[in-house]
Amino acid sequence: MPRATKGRADPRPLARHRTDAPLRIALLGLGTVGGAVARELLERAGELARAADGRSLDLVAIGVRDLRRPRDIPLPAELTLTDRVADLVADPGVDVVVEVMGGLEPAADLIVGALSNGKAVVTANKALLAREGAELERVARHGDVPLRFEGAVAGGIPVLSPLARDLAANRWTSVEGIVNGTTNHILTAMTEDAGAYHEVLADAQARGYAESDPSGDVEGRDAADKLAVLVRLAFGAWPDVTAIRRFPPVLEGEAPPGITGVAPEAVGAARGLGLAIKLVARAELHDGVLDASVLPSAVPAGSPIGSTDGVRNIVSLHGEPVGRVDLAGPGAG
Amino acid sequence: MPRATKGRADPRPLARHRTDAPLRIALLGLGTVGGAVARELLERAGELARAADGRSLDLVAIGVRDLRRPRDIPLPAELTLTDRVADLVADPGVDVVVEVMGGLEPAADLIVGALSNGKAVVTANKALLAREGAELERVARHGDVPLRFEGAVAGGIPVLSPLARDLAANRWTSVEGIVNGTTNHILTAMTEDAGAYHEVLADAQARGYAESDPSGDVEGRDAADKLAVLVRLAFGAWPDVTAIRRFPPVLEGEAPPGITGVAPEAVGAARGLGLAIKLVARAELHDGVLDASVLPSAVPAGSPIGSTDGVRNIVSLHGEPVGRVDLAGPGAG
Repeated sequence: MPRATKGRADPRPLARHRTDAPLRIALLGLGTVGGAVARELLERAGELARAADGRSLDLVAIGVRDLRRPRDIPLPAELTLTDRVADLVADPGVDVVVEVMGGLEPAADLIVGALSNGKAVVTANKALLAREGAELERVARHGDVPLRFEGAVAGGIPVLSPLARDLAANRWTSVEGIVNGTTNHILTAMTEDAGAYHEVLADAQARGYAESDPSGDVEGRDAADKLAVLVRLAFGAWPDVTAIRRFPPVLEGEAPPGITGVAPEAVGAARGLGLAIKLVARAELHDGVLDASVLPSAVPAGSPIGSTDGVRNIVSLHGEPVGRVDLAGPGAG
Repeated sequence: MPRATKGRADPRPLARHRTDAPLRIALLGLGTVGGAVARELLERAGELARAADGRSLDLVAIGVRDLRRPRDIPLPAELTLTDRVADLVADPGVDVVVEVMGGLEPAADLIVGALSNGKAVVTANKALLAREGAELERVARHGDVPLRFEGAVAGGIPVLSPLARDLAANRWTSVEGIVNGTTNHILTAMTEDAGAYHEVLADAQARGYAESDPSGDVEGRDAADKLAVLVRLAFGAWPDVTAIRRFPPVLEGEAPPGITGVAPEAVGAARGLGLAIKLVARAELHDGVLDASVLPSAVPAGSPIGSTDGVRNIVSLHGEPVGRVDLAGPGAG
């Protein structure tokens, strides 16, 4: 891990020159997140334009994998809906590409294509960023186009601008927090209802709070991907995501990763001591060397992290001269 | 109160055109805050330049009331120290004026002078902003120069950029929080040590946490000034600061303002119910009409506001579609 002072996150407006021309947006992906983004862009166009300094945000095209799949969102007739997604990232009628399809490929190729064609790119693809973020940023720098990924971690919590602007005069020493809503919901339910991990997980799956294959969440991989993005934002360099520790240290044998080994007895015992068990993502710089982990941890129940319950997220930054700053809000999708 | 949609806070960089020329700063005031600002600018010049996109921040002059007063900060020989403060705001060798002298006059005249002379102004003067903020912003707009006041409220908490950028797509309905460290320290001590208000206040004065005339803090006027600034940042318009309620409603007679009437019995009773008494500054928009107050309030002890102890501050924003975002950190000076 090199000394992490390479650069700060890009705080520039998406449009290089402020004009009154509309910003033409192509959306890649129309799943849960994509559908919500499309709805906001279509239904709140006026408000969003005011938020974008008067420049209107026009959703002109949506790229999907399967055109025949039924969609419950009404799309205007003039909007292009296509499964030829690679054409969109080369289309001169598109200024900004918003990638919310997820997965490593074809997302990586499409983002590189869009950046190479001079388009600004916004992505919430934390798995891709955690693995290819440095390369994607290199392509963006080479083409002098913005690449933004604020929504990839703790979507409802402002992290990028505070670090790049309000708090830019600080030296950060650590960033920690709760960045996975599914596991925090499970741990909160285990604490409040004294349930066993597998019962609570089954209930969360039945209610749609956990996926049918929950391993990415419960084993801490999603949180590790998000921690990699946070490290980039706070310390200016991408860490090796595979080096982020997710296995609690044990005396002997092999410990289960993430929250999969958290016993209800441990949750109850912690509660009796005024502690709460949380899946804490944490990165610290010691003399320029990064130590990063995603581990179940007992923290004071009344602390900012300990009192963050349910699907809420929190990011806690420590630095000089400011001290500790806590940013909390709803998590990313 | 007009419908508060006039505009958002100014997120532009202090320098209109990014160049490599140093930004020449004049500091007005060399008290506690001014001394700390001068020290940071002088001792951390390199780091601050990196935070300012490579442009160096040169402290070239300091204006003070009394030149003979001894200063415990070593000033370089080439730095101008003067009591002819009005000359500084007209000096063509100054790009940015940082006003940290406090008080209404001559601060207001100096800021208007600096803005009229085309200089960017940074001020942390919440009392002045709460009364003359709209007029100062009018002068700044007229001269097309930036006026910044992020440090005036909850200095260590990022509020301006999150509202102007990361969270700009939201409609805010309320902003609330703890914005006065002195009263929060007193209430925290009354809770933890079960002390009476006047004992705890005397102790806080002895330790330097409260001023010899603490009325501005304990009667809620300082918090009301800061709430006025928060209302400007969140809702886009300045409220009438004199209309912010500071007197708790009582059945008959006159209630003491701020925390001056908080009895230790009330603190203890609240604690027994799992509540904490906090001086909560709160502003809500109902159909475009603002309701704003600074009142001692019993809130759940484990909530973000209830668990903010000592001199820490918290700002909690509520809006759609994001929901609640909590921003917590050290208060302003």
